[in-house]
Amino acid sequence: MGTRLGELVERFGGQLMGDANLEVTGIAPLTDAGVSHISFLSNSKLRAQALGTAAAALIVSPADDEFIAAGYTGARIVTPNPYVYFARAAQYFHSLTAIVPPAGVHPTAFIGEGARIAATAHIGPKVVVEAGAVIGEHAVIDAGCYIGREAVVGEGTHFFANVTFHAYCQIGARGIIHSGAVIGTDGFGFANEKGVYIKIPQTGRVMIGDDVDIGANTTVDRGALADTVIEDGVKLDNLIQIAHNVHIGRNTAMAGCAAVAGSTRIGANCTIGGAANIVGHLTFVDGVHISAATTVTRSIGEPGVYSGPYPFEENSSWQKNAATLRQLHTLRERVRALEKK
Amino acid sequence: MGTRLGELVERFGGQLMGDANLEVTGIAPLTDAGVSHISFLSNSKLRAQALGTAAAALIVSPADDEFIAAGYTGARIVTPNPYVYFARAAQYFHSLTAIVPPAGVHPTAFIGEGARIAATAHIGPKVVVEAGAVIGEHAVIDAGCYIGREAVVGEGTHFFANVTFHAYCQIGARGIIHSGAVIGTDGFGFANEKGVYIKIPQTGRVMIGDDVDIGANTTVDRGALADTVIEDGVKLDNLIQIAHNVHIGRNTAMAGCAAVAGSTRIGANCTIGGAANIVGHLTFVDGVHISAATTVTRSIGEPGVYSGPYPFEENSSWQKNAATLRQLHTLRERVRALEKK
Amino acid sequence: MGTRLGELVERFGGQLMGDANLEVTGIAPLTDAGVSHISFLSNSKLRAQALGTAAAALIVSPADDEFIAAGYTGARIVTPNPYVYFARAAQYFHSLTAIVPPAGVHPTAFIGEGARIAATAHIGPKVVVEAGAVIGEHAVIDAGCYIGREAVVGEGTHFFANVTFHAYCQIGARGIIHSGAVIGTDGFGFANEKGVYIKIPQTGRVMIGDDVDIGANTTVDRGALADTVIEDGVKLDNLIQIAHNVHIGRNTAMAGCAAVAGSTRIGANCTIGGAANIVGHLTFVDGVHISAATTVTRSIGEPGVYSGPYPFEENSSWQKNAATLRQLHTLRERVRALEKK
Repeated sequence: MGTRLGELVERFGGQLMGDANLEVTGIAPLTDAGVSHISFLSNSKLRAQALGTAAAALIVSPADDEFIAAGYTGARIVTPNPYVYFARAAQYFHSLTAIVPPAGVHPTAFIGEGARIAATAHIGPKVVVEAGAVIGEHAVIDAGCYIGREAVVGEGTHFFANVTFHAYCQIGARGIIHSGAVIGTDGFGFANEKGVYIKIPQTGRVMIGDDVDIGANTTVDRGALADTVIEDGVKLDNLIQIAHNVHIGRNTAMAGCAAVAGSTRIGANCTIGGAANIVGHLTFVDGVHISAATTVTRSIGEPGVYSGPYPFEENSSWQKNAATLRQLHTLRERVRALEKK
Repeated sequence: MGTRLGELVERFGGQLMGDANLEVTGIAPLTDAGVSHISFLSNSKLRAQALGTAAAALIVSPADDEFIAAGYTGARIVTPNPYVYFARAAQYFHSLTAIVPPAGVHPTAFIGEGARIAATAHIGPKVVVEAGAVIGEHAVIDAGCYIGREAVVGEGTHFFANVTFHAYCQIGARGIIHSGAVIGTDGFGFANEKGVYIKIPQTGRVMIGDDVDIGANTTVDRGALADTVIEDGVKLDNLIQIAHNVHIGRNTAMAGCAAVAGSTRIGANCTIGGAANIVGHLTFVDGVHISAATTVTRSIGEPGVYSGPYPFEENSSWQKNAATLRQLHTLRERVRALEKK
Repeated sequence: MGTRLGELVERFGGQLMGDANLEVTGIAPLTDAGVSHISFLSNSKLRAQALGTAAAALIVSPADDEFIAAGYTGARIVTPNPYVYFARAAQYFHSLTAIVPPAGVHPTAFIGEGARIAATAHIGPKVVVEAGAVIGEHAVIDAGCYIGREAVVGEGTHFFANVTFHAYCQIGARGIIHSGAVIGTDGFGFANEKGVYIKIPQTGRVMIGDDVDIGANTTVDRGALADTVIEDGVKLDNLIQIAHNVHIGRNTAMAGCAAVAGSTRIGANCTIGGAANIVGHLTFVDGVHISAATTVTRSIGEPGVYSGPYPFEENSSWQKNAATLRQLHTLRERVRALEKK
């Protein structure tokens, strides 16, 4: 019923210290693991806790292994990054019980003329696929999704229920789009004539690479003339706004409620904290890390960590400090005057 | 045609000063009420205004009643909390004209194998209920909703159109989920291997108590291993993000666009202002009140009001103060130097 | 195949300097335009760039025309506002290739009793139109939309896929609502009785004027008793929250993730920056401009620009300044003490 440790090592590597035929039924954190589980030590500070785990086996780093070996009698898999190993093993255990949706188009779906649905793809109930759209092999399109005209969904990509993916947009392989996300809506572009807004047609697309995850109710606007681009490996959390003509470099991650305004270009391997707000027409180099709730108003040319949330306080203290903040410039002048004396 | 004052008092209590057979047709604020309405005085500052209302009857507190009795000739219902009485009476008048959706499953809905729909529940057009889900008595599931596999919806709970409620999640009795909300999407969990994100399966659920309201386009992530928990009586407004493994205590309310990051634990009877942002892995005791647009970066161990929005100003003033703010630490050093002289 | 310059001038005005029979196939920015395109110079700083464009014709302002005429050999259309001309011309070119959805109700749509659908309207697949709703001439309701009971959609208004538009709400002519938007959800109104929230029925509507655009996943709450009102020409971007009883004046625009709390009244021709947060019960006059990420906590009685984002910094600098900020009031006291000496 379980999985042999030997099989885990064959799949995911690592050096096994113990019986390859020992079977484990799942993976769990140190304190939650039972006697049929494998657990993992991803933080050396938890070494002492690891010795007390009930788990039958532990995933440990070379640096922790000597300490663990001395006090833990279960099997060990030694690997440079136990947390990554945990992620892979967890995916594996999850796949053993996951219900794979059947290939084929549900009878209540509506498929437009000339749409091409791969034979191994799953199209769920009430899905609408417009004319000329292309759905790749092993793609899973859950109930209620809308796929626009001539849109392209890559191999193995999964849309959860009620995703909206507009005309001509494309996503690559192995992506995930969560429920309620809207990809390819018109960007917010207008010319103003004597106070009245005249809409500028948004004729670009959204082009999304491979291995991209997009969170629930996140919105990604199509480009005005050129495309909005999300490169391979980008991970976007829920309720994020990506405006038209934004470009997000590969393996960048953004936490929930972040927003990026139009035409901003974010580098690769950046992290954007929750509720951070990046204004338009900026450029970030690779490796920029923005703290939660930070508003970024200028381009960033150096990798590093940048921050800007207002420090919260007990309310009466905040009131006094905020009132003083409104006179800060004056306060500086007063200090200057004192210095001159 | 109307409702007797006597009937209101029988239903909702209060001491009636006036004719129990007087009929009123609805409830309205002091200035909007007509001669067939009942109105309410929930704020003593509006006493003078109350004397001028056209309403046939007034709901008043004991503290205001002497003043009102002296100058107002209509009937009065005296009750400790007139605003609560207003809410209950408004619900009652609303129920008299509300259209109750018929019991039964609409022919355009799709119900998966083994799903159990209570006989008194309403399942609207184009709804999808996946295999094994359970819908309680008198539940109302409006058009286009998606209910995942083995999810549970309690008695009398109402999903407005186009809610997404994912597999294995549960909500108790008398809840309301508004349109576009997404419950049980994957949490944002990854291990990072040399810059590439490896997804950690999110195998927990969202467990929601009784009498919980969730606003439009709000997202609540399922737990990574354990569950995300929302206790009884919690009220969430629109466009809120609740990340994986968050725990929200009973009768806590959050205003629109608030966000709570992963594993944070919020106490009971807290209020979280609009667009407030709570980072992950914090703990709040009961009775914590966070002002709008405040970013909270540390746990809060004392009940009270906490604030942190930047005080807005006319733009040119803000520019000067913001520029000085970037040198605030230096300014403090200069003051220290002056003090030493 | 192309469009004659003469035809553009007949449609949109401007003074043509060149051959009215010259044909262009589309409009593009200066640097992207090919030899069959018309381009535009909307910013005098780009004059030099304009001379190098490959475009067959240029839209220029009177102020720039002398300079351009001296160095550019293509045709020119001289008009006071080239950017507005660009918007109109782009709409025109877009219309030449846009696919117009056919009039009529898709067989997979569900139309409730007594709903009136104009003969020229398009109702897409899986749409639900509840009883008594009214859909105007040439309206386009894309797949999966939900239109509540007795709601009214004006002539030529376009709902993209998966919009939710609740009962009794109304929108005028030529509007656009983008995917995932939810109009007319209950406002967030409760009375609190000893810690427990009692819901106040939200019986008002959302009343939307002509020429209003509403972005993807934006939410607009119905009024508590009176209506929430959005006047003609308002443009709302994605993921915006408009609470109950808000009133937005004509031709006001809001960028993504902005939020307006209950009963606030915003004037005409205002702009609200991205992620700005306006608290409840305020009033703005016409012509107020709020910068991105600004929290507004008081009414604004004078037109102008108002700002309030915290200035972001490199993280270690922010930490020092934020720590000092918590003592700002004390620092002011110390300066005062020094001045007294």
